[in-house]
Amino acid sequence: MKCKRCRKAEAAVDLPSHHSAFCPDCFFLYFRRQVEEGIRKLSLLAPDDRVLVCVSGGKDSLVLWDILMELGYRTEGLHIDLGIEEYSGRSREKVLAYAGARGKEPIVLDLREEGIPIPEAATRARKEECSVCGTVKRYHFNRIAARRGFTVVATGHNLDDEAARLLGNLLHWDHDHLSRQHPLLPEAAEGLVRKVKPLWRVSELETAAYGFLKGIDYVTEECPLSVDATSLVYKEALSLIEEKMPGTRRHFYQGFLLKNRDVLNNSKAPSRGLISHILVLVPGLFKNVPVFK
Amino acid sequence: MKCKRCRKAEAAVDLPSHHSAFCPDCFFLYFRRQVEEGIRKLSLLAPDDRVLVCVSGGKDSLVLWDILMELGYRTEGLHIDLGIEEYSGRSREKVLAYAGARGKEPIVLDLREEGIPIPEAATRARKEECSVCGTVKRYHFNRIAARRGFTVVATGHNLDDEAARLLGNLLHWDHDHLSRQHPLLPEAAEGLVRKVKPLWRVSELETAAYGFLKGIDYVTEECPLSVDATSLVYKEALSLIEEKMPGTRRHFYQGFLLKNRDVLNNSKAPSRGLISHILVLVPGLFKNVPVFK
Repeated sequence: MKCKRCRKAEAAVDLPSHHSAFCPDCFFLYFRRQVEEGIRKLSLLAPDDRVLVCVSGGKDSLVLWDILMELGYRTEGLHIDLGIEEYSGRSREKVLAYAGARGKEPIVLDLREEGIPIPEAATRARKEECSVCGTVKRYHFNRIAARRGFTVVATGHNLDDEAARLLGNLLHWDHDHLSRQHPLLPEAAEGLVRKVKPLWRVSELETAAYGFLKGIDYVTEECPLSVDATSLVYKEALSLIEEKMPGTRRHFYQGFLLKNRDVLNNSKAPSRGLISHILVLVPGLFKNVPVFK
Repeated sequence: MKCKRCRKAEAAVDLPSHHSAFCPDCFFLYFRRQVEEGIRKLSLLAPDDRVLVCVSGGKDSLVLWDILMELGYRTEGLHIDLGIEEYSGRSREKVLAYAGARGKEPIVLDLREEGIPIPEAATRARKEECSVCGTVKRYHFNRIAARRGFTVVATGHNLDDEAARLLGNLLHWDHDHLSRQHPLLPEAAEGLVRKVKPLWRVSELETAAYGFLKGIDYVTEECPLSVDATSLVYKEALSLIEEKMPGTRRHFYQGFLLKNRDVLNNSKAPSRGLISHILVLVPGLFKNVPVFK
């Protein structure tokens, strides 16, 4: 099959949800435009922003860093070593290798030194690992960004992540989480830095294809603690529907953002939750780390 | 495993979404109470109603007729022979056998004699078979109920049907259909008879178990035209989630009815749509049948 844009090169990426297929060069252009459009539409970033990019070592976050650098934003990478078996070591290596090849030196926070490794934190908090991990990461992302003068924190969540989260929130009619679900959470009192998800318009498949075709070397294994994560079940359910009805995921999430988010939340602007309720529940969880910046 | 209610007999039906398991007798009681509760909560039926039960020959509609008779409602069965290959013949036989054994004679409408068989109707309307079939059936259910003095039409849609429909409507943010999604559609102008779904609180598995344990002989095969029905994809996606998180489907649909339906529809009461827009699109589709009662 030929690329549907240039009609010359062989198509390398098939995108049924866009009724399209692109050769690598046209796909890069498409992907870049999707991300630019996502940033522009919701005013996620300004040219003079100092962007702290949260890089786990997985494809989404490294692709995010890559495309933000390509788009000319001022970025630094922040990697949190979660202290999860060999998985964390391998993830850290990928981040350091990627950054090193581009003359960058990421900020690295090792939870075994500053803080508490996730498996132990989950045991102490008596909560599910993914939930504790999310809270701990959000806390440190914000703390480090605020302390070091970054104007915005960027994470690599893609369309599949956000649509799956939306499905979960709707299945449980969780208005609290629905009100906080948006690619832009504005700066707020108590030192909360703006938080953005610039990849909200591109799918997981698109991000993976971009990473692969750009030769970005990322951790391909899933986190060993996330095997039973509920978010994976919602993703699987949506993938099943997407396969039969390409484009459903995109319409679902974009339809939510454009109109139905306001309807469901009484026209409220995106709100910020407490950074971390487990701060309250588990005193001492963030050992060696000042609780507020 | 013992029945969790009587703690004596062996459990025959396992209901993880209710953290329960019942022997046949206790399950009949449970099922009957669920249906009674569903009727009472939304005032679906009154003791003096004359109920026209739409019976396809499948498990849901025969179980509906069975339980409504057991609950003492005045019912008659209406079967529409859709003219779909051998499937329709086998379905009709099941309905006649079930009714005959209970001294009942269902009203039968044969689309090959009055009207147009579904395969031909779909070709003429240039629409998907399931969509045309639904419209044609709704039209005749209402017409026959109104002409014969029934006060209400009852269909066998269960919790799985309604939750799948809700998921589809939310994925497409279809406010028009969301506003009409309710187990009770009230009587309305232009001869629209009240329409109810008394099985809205019981799952497909529960309905199947009830039918099986009561020895009701129903058509087990799916309609050959429904293989690609989108509703089946939504059902499959929800089943995947339900399996990992029992009870999700029930909370999803009940949460919609109890609170979020109003939020999404600006507090409007359930509205009735046009009986049949294909009446307009395809004149002559209902040959030999008066268009209005």
